[in-house]
Amino acid sequence: MKFFIIGANGRIGKELCNDLLEKGHVVTAAARHFEQLDDLKGLTKVKLDLNDNAQAIAKTMTANPDVIYFVAGSRGNDLLNIDTYGAVKSMQAAEINHIKRFVMLSGYGSLTPSFWEQTSLKEYYTAKYFADNWLISNTNLDYTILQPGTLTEKPLTGKVSLNTSEAGENSIKDVAAVLAAIPEHKNTNKKIISMHDGSTPIDEALKEV
Amino acid sequence: MKFFIIGANGRIGKELCNDLLEKGHVVTAAARHFEQLDDLKGLTKVKLDLNDNAQAIAKTMTANPDVIYFVAGSRGNDLLNIDTYGAVKSMQAAEINHIKRFVMLSGYGSLTPSFWEQTSLKEYYTAKYFADNWLISNTNLDYTILQPGTLTEKPLTGKVSLNTSEAGENSIKDVAAVLAAIPEHKNTNKKIISMHDGSTPIDEALKEV
Repeated sequence: MKFFIIGANGRIGKELCNDLLEKGHVVTAAARHFEQLDDLKGLTKVKLDLNDNAQAIAKTMTANPDVIYFVAGSRGNDLLNIDTYGAVKSMQAAEINHIKRFVMLSGYGSLTPSFWEQTSLKEYYTAKYFADNWLISNTNLDYTILQPGTLTEKPLTGKVSLNTSEAGENSIKDVAAVLAAIPEHKNTNKKIISMHDGSTPIDEALKEV
Repeated sequence: MKFFIIGANGRIGKELCNDLLEKGHVVTAAARHFEQLDDLKGLTKVKLDLNDNAQAIAKTMTANPDVIYFVAGSRGNDLLNIDTYGAVKSMQAAEINHIKRFVMLSGYGSLTPSFWEQTSLKEYYTAKYFADNWLISNTNLDYTILQPGTLTEKPLTGKVSLNTSEAGENSIKDVAAVLAAIPEHKNTNKKIISMHDGSTPIDEALKEV
């Protein structure tokens, strides 16, 4: 399969690219800071600025990908333009290209304001709330929204808890591994999946969502 | 009728309050900066902070209003939190209170990114784009979205052009007068109405939208 990763220069983006390559897929890595993709090998690299309009973003998706991943973020520096509108323009670009499958990296509880309105992450979550709601309500995309909690640098375990009732820590490597496995599980279409570190092998856990 | 004005301390908000009072309506003026409502007379004043959650905002709508107006804005200082999410929480608060009628002050072309993406108002419009789209797609409110262009301090004329094919100038007093007249015209339900200064009397113009 062919994959297009928006935000491939990020901590999760790089792991995701490598996971998909290891599975034998064709990968295009997209980022605004093209030079930050230097250490990724064996894939196509494209410059993509989420400040551009949807039509311009659509033109970067030239390799006819089967799946778009959105794993970009402004780290709080430009939430409305990047985390919200950049995500929405990426969805619109997918639709312009008739690409149906869209996998979104979000955050635990993104659709539940009561979970985050009193926290220091309120602004980040507000941005994700609008991006995720757009994906659900304003597109016809076959989406999956993955909602991990706090990210850590811990080693890969290959084991997780999905659709958890509480937030928890998440190894970046395990989050990337779940993202990479999502397209292999058709039952993840139109699903919102929360996660944290756990004890169930990823493929087994994804079968049950 | 009873009206609840969110952002009553603004340039349009104050004109709107006075217009509604002149028509003999019962008006509640809501604003974060309560003291900025001092020069409004003959109405109820409430403190409303758009940073609060939807439940808290809902509790300020105690007078059982028939119509909610959203004419607030951060003037570019806090677009995601106020112009987008503050507006959305106001819609949610209306729904919590089973108030169906919601009149939104927006901007010319708000739903058409190609109109504003290359302009200096891009960020303002991005915020309005998400607020307006939420009102249309994510609520069951009986909305009207009014989209004037550039605001001016010119005198009231009582005459406008609605659903115009080009942006233009708009007297603040005429914008307020159109807002005040919208609930008198049931045909404005579920409508997006662009406007600028013109030659058609307001009531006549509203009948045709």
